[in-house]
Amino acid sequence: MNFASDNIVGASAPVLHAILEANAGTMAAYGNDEISQCVKARFNEIFEREVSVFFVTTGTAANALALSSAVPPYGLCVCHREAHVIDDECGAPEFFMHGAKLAGLPGVGAKLKADDVDVYLKSLPKAVKQMPPKALSISQVSEGGLVYGLDELAALGAVCREHGLSFHMDGARFVNALVSLGCTPADMTWRRGVDILSFGATKNGGLMAEAIVVFKPALAEALDYRSKRAGQIISKGRLIAAQFEGYFADGHWLDNARHANRMATLLSDGLLQLPGVRLAWPTQANEVFPIIPKTLDQALKAAGILYHPWTDLSLPEAEHVADHEVLIRLVTSWASREEDVRRLLEVASSGISRHAAE
Amino acid sequence: MNFASDNIVGASAPVLHAILEANAGTMAAYGNDEISQCVKARFNEIFEREVSVFFVTTGTAANALALSSAVPPYGLCVCHREAHVIDDECGAPEFFMHGAKLAGLPGVGAKLKADDVDVYLKSLPKAVKQMPPKALSISQVSEGGLVYGLDELAALGAVCREHGLSFHMDGARFVNALVSLGCTPADMTWRRGVDILSFGATKNGGLMAEAIVVFKPALAEALDYRSKRAGQIISKGRLIAAQFEGYFADGHWLDNARHANRMATLLSDGLLQLPGVRLAWPTQANEVFPIIPKTLDQALKAAGILYHPWTDLSLPEAEHVADHEVLIRLVTSWASREEDVRRLLEVASSGISRHAAE
Amino acid sequence: MNFASDNIVGASAPVLHAILEANAGTMAAYGNDEISQCVKARFNEIFEREVSVFFVTTGTAANALALSSAVPPYGLCVCHREAHVIDDECGAPEFFMHGAKLAGLPGVGAKLKADDVDVYLKSLPKAVKQMPPKALSISQVSEGGLVYGLDELAALGAVCREHGLSFHMDGARFVNALVSLGCTPADMTWRRGVDILSFGATKNGGLMAEAIVVFKPALAEALDYRSKRAGQIISKGRLIAAQFEGYFADGHWLDNARHANRMATLLSDGLLQLPGVRLAWPTQANEVFPIIPKTLDQALKAAGILYHPWTDLSLPEAEHVADHEVLIRLVTSWASREEDVRRLLEVASSGISRHAAE
Amino acid sequence: MNFASDNIVGASAPVLHAILEANAGTMAAYGNDEISQCVKARFNEIFEREVSVFFVTTGTAANALALSSAVPPYGLCVCHREAHVIDDECGAPEFFMHGAKLAGLPGVGAKLKADDVDVYLKSLPKAVKQMPPKALSISQVSEGGLVYGLDELAALGAVCREHGLSFHMDGARFVNALVSLGCTPADMTWRRGVDILSFGATKNGGLMAEAIVVFKPALAEALDYRSKRAGQIISKGRLIAAQFEGYFADGHWLDNARHANRMATLLSDGLLQLPGVRLAWPTQANEVFPIIPKTLDQALKAAGILYHPWTDLSLPEAEHVADHEVLIRLVTSWASREEDVRRLLEVASSGISRHAAE
Repeated sequence: MNFASDNIVGASAPVLHAILEANAGTMAAYGNDEISQCVKARFNEIFEREVSVFFVTTGTAANALALSSAVPPYGLCVCHREAHVIDDECGAPEFFMHGAKLAGLPGVGAKLKADDVDVYLKSLPKAVKQMPPKALSISQVSEGGLVYGLDELAALGAVCREHGLSFHMDGARFVNALVSLGCTPADMTWRRGVDILSFGATKNGGLMAEAIVVFKPALAEALDYRSKRAGQIISKGRLIAAQFEGYFADGHWLDNARHANRMATLLSDGLLQLPGVRLAWPTQANEVFPIIPKTLDQALKAAGILYHPWTDLSLPEAEHVADHEVLIRLVTSWASREEDVRRLLEVASSGISRHAAE
Repeated sequence: MNFASDNIVGASAPVLHAILEANAGTMAAYGNDEISQCVKARFNEIFEREVSVFFVTTGTAANALALSSAVPPYGLCVCHREAHVIDDECGAPEFFMHGAKLAGLPGVGAKLKADDVDVYLKSLPKAVKQMPPKALSISQVSEGGLVYGLDELAALGAVCREHGLSFHMDGARFVNALVSLGCTPADMTWRRGVDILSFGATKNGGLMAEAIVVFKPALAEALDYRSKRAGQIISKGRLIAAQFEGYFADGHWLDNARHANRMATLLSDGLLQLPGVRLAWPTQANEVFPIIPKTLDQALKAAGILYHPWTDLSLPEAEHVADHEVLIRLVTSWASREEDVRRLLEVASSGISRHAAE
Repeated sequence: MNFASDNIVGASAPVLHAILEANAGTMAAYGNDEISQCVKARFNEIFEREVSVFFVTTGTAANALALSSAVPPYGLCVCHREAHVIDDECGAPEFFMHGAKLAGLPGVGAKLKADDVDVYLKSLPKAVKQMPPKALSISQVSEGGLVYGLDELAALGAVCREHGLSFHMDGARFVNALVSLGCTPADMTWRRGVDILSFGATKNGGLMAEAIVVFKPALAEALDYRSKRAGQIISKGRLIAAQFEGYFADGHWLDNARHANRMATLLSDGLLQLPGVRLAWPTQANEVFPIIPKTLDQALKAAGILYHPWTDLSLPEAEHVADHEVLIRLVTSWASREEDVRRLLEVASSGISRHAAE
Repeated sequence: MNFASDNIVGASAPVLHAILEANAGTMAAYGNDEISQCVKARFNEIFEREVSVFFVTTGTAANALALSSAVPPYGLCVCHREAHVIDDECGAPEFFMHGAKLAGLPGVGAKLKADDVDVYLKSLPKAVKQMPPKALSISQVSEGGLVYGLDELAALGAVCREHGLSFHMDGARFVNALVSLGCTPADMTWRRGVDILSFGATKNGGLMAEAIVVFKPALAEALDYRSKRAGQIISKGRLIAAQFEGYFADGHWLDNARHANRMATLLSDGLLQLPGVRLAWPTQANEVFPIIPKTLDQALKAAGILYHPWTDLSLPEAEHVADHEVLIRLVTSWASREEDVRRLLEVASSGISRHAAE
């Protein structure tokens, strides 16, 4: 059983089917085909306004390209200090932004508070030695599995406007947040001040399909050139667009995310029943961050269950992981099977019991 | 009928089938899966030695990453002045190489001569104002549809060694050249001095599948980091590796290229029968570059046949395109149908006749 | 005797004197001092309008920073193919522009014609693979020692406006051109459409003192950050500003350039008296480009006279350098002594005679 | 009275004199002159071995170029989180390193401990998402005015060797540290494992004169190109080299630093006599970091004394600045006058008394 991430499974059936459908016949290359145009129009509907859409193949490319459109080489981009963009992309944003800097701020569960961002921005010296802040990047869902509420997003959007920053959302798990909040894509983005979005589909059923969705037109102006120049304009473009066709059809994308979140809740609730287990912070989407006894950790591993240990850097101030404990991350996906979740809980339960008995 | 390029069709059936096969179950992400490992081993067999392989999704990314491993930011990369890397990638090499420069030399049919490269390199001032040459990049097949012979490759390889350059081959149409020469991949690459190869599969049947194949180990050292940083490490890595599985199985890749080349020969031979039609240079792979009367050009277009006009910059010195003529490019692929080629020839033939009659 | 360049002498006395004057006492660092402010105001007077001024220490830095403000990383900058920016700066513009590309066009005497630029710009494909042109850079004086006339500048300015390019002037020998034309700085720059200027002082008497002068305010917005980031904001800023104080005082800068140009004219006229000597193109500022017999070349060298051979790439079409000839460049400066010029002419004259006698 | 920094004064008399001496006559440009060669040989003597030397005009350029030779674009450079390179250079290192990242660690008085660096390096994941560490950069004197002892340097050098990092020293105040330790330049650098040094002269008497001194030959290989490309190769190169001539002659550089340090000690000792004044950390070179009552701060400012407030981020753990206090930085230089220091102490003393009396 693999709870290591939501990218350890393949593509979902509707996505594959759409690829097969789109594969026949000849069409213009490099995204100048009808399917690409059609899918872009679909994004307008989904976001209830005209948006600019750029397809890429990885979340890292989506984030780095998005930030490069908002931050000049001498600029600063504020993010959480555990953000994917600062921690997990081997410096892709710095590469695409040509040496611009990411400034990582702290925050519980890898979420940023608007006030903290505001205080930080106000603390920066007004001097030429200080790279000027040009963008804020947040992850919705956060790297701690938390979901920004609509008010929190609005507050961050207001800080961005006040300080003249562009507001970027890394939506690698966009739909997991969306169904968690039960709001519309528009409500969770541009209506709260988001200017540019990395819209992830790969983790939620795509084969390799991510989109940059731009709400502030100025940020879209050069993205085609930047994307081409980054080797991100796929020659058989219809085969990336088609993935979104299958993804959006019949609410498939929403169903996938709802399933993943439900599996996480099931997992989270089950774990909380066990003595000695607590959550680092609440389960709000498709990731669970329990602090568990090391003995349980061993039992889970012995049962062949795959997952990652996690950093305790973003625990609430009073909280800490004891020597006999470990903080882990369990991720569910559209493809997670309820029986696997229940099996994990059984393993955990008997692991705890056995240890208590010893 | 579309002869605009070889990327206007989808993926071939064996490639799609391999994706579907690989899609089931869970596997480690980011290329740490068994399929990726297996396919990399397959590359060793194909090239008859140990090679390093890096999967990417576009030819532009393959070229730009490959060059970035060979050319430092202050270096120079020599190529043909019509090379894809200098002309068609919106500066991707310059982006990935951090501002290194491409120097474009002339040559008939977009091929470089070893002597010309040698003379150019010797002409460069030995001064700090001169960016030092660090790599040679050629396209096999060339942008003019010509194939470098094994001796020509060896001569270029020798020039590279003499001047301390790395030797890069843009193999967007690698297999078309391979079957044209009837040699082995090893013979066409490292045995002639090639250090690093962009091994294209997309144009010849892949969905989005390109590989960087490295023969000079030093060039492979940091490519994983550079690729990650460029957003080119696909999370569901097995689904790019799988494409190569399908591609290599049962000689599928060779069959595809042989078919494409045969279609081009058919087309080329047919066109040469027509009065007023001549070739800019010979047809050697899957592209035909005829110089045709403008009246014929109009007839072809009127029949809905798609293709691109082409530059006459690399014609042989004595040759030129007259006012009433146009140089065009016709590209065939693994999916070109013989009936479409014959239909084009018919249209052309009757176009010529009609015009003669008028 | 050294005619190799105009940077082989030290600083002029008024410049040195101004440094010594400014050296005493304490002042704010990094250009926040009164002298810097004062000199910047002086630039406003000189250019008859408000300009933004940024001090740097080399012409390469001035050019590269100026271009980086006008050309985004995915953009194209048009220049002459022998321009200093493309040929003599080890890729500084590409570094500062983060991989943007320089496109070098031909032109007699290293000058560009407005029509040629226009034709080139119109020939560029409107496609994402094509880096969009964003700036034109010319050298006034050109690398061939020619001076653009006011009409020629206006025509180039018009082409820039039509195509939406910023217009950069590399004024390493700005004042030599200025006194050659006998016009005002305003007439030779913004009144003809120039948007940003590398204003050189080092070659004409400075110690290390160059300024970027910006006429189009948008280009000045981030130059302070870019300059700091390039290590070009001098900590003891007053000591670079002071050089301009001494330079501008009492018409010293104009006198220096007039002297240099006069020496070049003297040299040029004298050489033209000699049999077998002709000019590659006219002498218009402080550089002379004679085509001389190789025997004369040997005689000059034997007399210990220093200068550089020059490329014949920008000769007029009908012209060429014969096997027994060589094209050389002789540069005069504010410090050239008339006696040295006359001595060179004597050496040349007797060299020619001796050879004729042999 | 200005204690804001050591760059608020001009150049020292011997430095100016050397410039005037070197100014006469013609010499080869771009550092190919005898003075430059001579001064480079002098560096060999000073460092008791062959070193490579590159002259630049700012400390920012020296640091950024040095780091660019040690850290590839995908690499990581470890430094203190208050290091000049990370905090005060508007991202120059990131620009010159093409997007490589600086990782800032904590440490009292802006000094790094070898153990902390070691622990940090060991904590980095061995994964492609993690930029690999390639260099350590320290400031000697630290940004907190502290001097690394020889053992501390050796320990850091050992950590670098163990982890395969290049070891960079930002020596903007190199000589202040040198005379504080009373050791030789060799002892304080390569004998302790330092690979590359930013050797500052500007703050200690130069006009604009910094040098990069390279001990690990591989790091010097491309620095000429990088420097040219950064616009840092001065055309009248002898006039930057000459500054070092004057600087090194007759122990002038050492005298200057000794004076500056002595003035700081005088200042520091005097301040410590005052009630309510303590040092954030010891005074070891030419900077004093007292924590003073806000009332004293006001008195000093009222007397027209210039200096900067300072961050309390690097105070020892137990220490803190109270609400009624402020942490300030006072910098002395080769040009500081003892009478000014005594006058400051008098103002401070009477400020304290007056406040006590109120």
